[in-house]
Amino acid sequence: MDTTVVACCQIAPVLGDLAGNRELTAAAVARAVAAGASVIVLPELVSSGYVFESKAEARSHAEAPDGDTVQLWMRLAAEHGVVIVGGFCEAAGDDVYNSAALVDGGTLLGVYRKAHLWDRERLWFTPGDDPPAVADTRFGRIGVMICYDLEFPEWARLPALDGAQLLCAPVNWPYTPRPEGERPVEFVRVQADAGVNRMFVAACDRAGTERGVDWVSGSVIVDPDGWPLACASPGDGPVTIMAECKLGDALDKGVGGLSNIHADRRPALYQRVAE
Amino acid sequence: MDTTVVACCQIAPVLGDLAGNRELTAAAVARAVAAGASVIVLPELVSSGYVFESKAEARSHAEAPDGDTVQLWMRLAAEHGVVIVGGFCEAAGDDVYNSAALVDGGTLLGVYRKAHLWDRERLWFTPGDDPPAVADTRFGRIGVMICYDLEFPEWARLPALDGAQLLCAPVNWPYTPRPEGERPVEFVRVQADAGVNRMFVAACDRAGTERGVDWVSGSVIVDPDGWPLACASPGDGPVTIMAECKLGDALDKGVGGLSNIHADRRPALYQRVAE
Repeated sequence: MDTTVVACCQIAPVLGDLAGNRELTAAAVARAVAAGASVIVLPELVSSGYVFESKAEARSHAEAPDGDTVQLWMRLAAEHGVVIVGGFCEAAGDDVYNSAALVDGGTLLGVYRKAHLWDRERLWFTPGDDPPAVADTRFGRIGVMICYDLEFPEWARLPALDGAQLLCAPVNWPYTPRPEGERPVEFVRVQADAGVNRMFVAACDRAGTERGVDWVSGSVIVDPDGWPLACASPGDGPVTIMAECKLGDALDKGVGGLSNIHADRRPALYQRVAE
Repeated sequence: MDTTVVACCQIAPVLGDLAGNRELTAAAVARAVAAGASVIVLPELVSSGYVFESKAEARSHAEAPDGDTVQLWMRLAAEHGVVIVGGFCEAAGDDVYNSAALVDGGTLLGVYRKAHLWDRERLWFTPGDDPPAVADTRFGRIGVMICYDLEFPEWARLPALDGAQLLCAPVNWPYTPRPEGERPVEFVRVQADAGVNRMFVAACDRAGTERGVDWVSGSVIVDPDGWPLACASPGDGPVTIMAECKLGDALDKGVGGLSNIHADRRPALYQRVAE
């Protein structure tokens, strides 16, 4: 069965340095391509950095999808024949969104706007009202959501129901303490999101301290059984993780015998979840 | 803050030996009570065993809630002033259900019928159509679901939305291989169910081979952050695990700063999950 090499480039953007961050992403994409990657995931808000202090500041670092960052990713994806998913700070009229672009070759297949805003993000970003982006790419059907979205299993269910074989999630996981020997909780939730939906999930975290905030730096690629195929050692600095993914495996929702995690759902009983 | 000692009694019922299985549960409850437990969870189908081969066989080992098994649990719970949650094979007219009783002292607060039937269960059991049982007990608000139900995060969401502080889940997790060093996938999903809902989850697995089927034997009690408080070493035989749970912690859905995992949900965007 065909395999697709998926990479997460866990880099360290610098707050407000849009030109420098573009260069970081270009260098990371070049390294991942040289190592054989076909689908490349970049962190959340990699264009701008994360720790804003006002809407005005976020707005001043925001770009439209036809701005320099996404246009660069389209040129790189076209040049190398790859898919790139990356987070960027999006300007749209007076609104600022925490967005991610899905680029296949020279084509912008979708821009997803984060629907579940974490903590102070709500003070500057407008939440998106559209479901996770899902599109057919040259390597298979790919879905996109961002960071805190992954903590809402209703949301992770949507791209799976839409046929996504791989969910790409730019994230910035703020560091929180954990018991010795335990994986980050975010990692565990990605394992569950993948396993209960039988799809691959690639979560690309970031490195680098920003205004005193540290990150888990725990990028991970998980298979449809929920097992990690590749992961950063939490606390790693900039690093690229890669895994060979048989994306076709995600088309089979059977889990043994007569069971199938899509067919076995009881959606008529789930009304309360959507009220 | 008050703590409640929760126990999972991972015992080994014998297929079709209803009287013997009742004795096993009585002995397990007595041991747990002696060790200080207030809420005691027993495995799925502990009254009857699991590996049936026909509906007739399942029917022959089924009891109504006023049958000997649940009545025993009510007497024991009344005698010791505890809550017992246990799985039993339920007869109701021509139907057979994979059910669990929630008993508080001498009172039967609810009977939950498994809604998501695993593999061949669908050949003999009728699926339940009611949501997970949730009720106020002397120790706090407790929800009940069974085994494969836990793999549907929409389902685990329901008791959390109904205010359950602790979800008790009788399970029979069939053994499947896993990569070295990895926890059972079922364990990981319980961690996620607990964490994304900020409720305690106690999953009571079973031991003992039955008609060639082995079990994970991986009972686990998880806190609202998703960390395991107690767990069986997978592959353990009969064992009781116990944890002190501050059930009040589950009333706070805040996860840092302005974020709250209930208030941050976007239910109007989740319609597709219930279609």
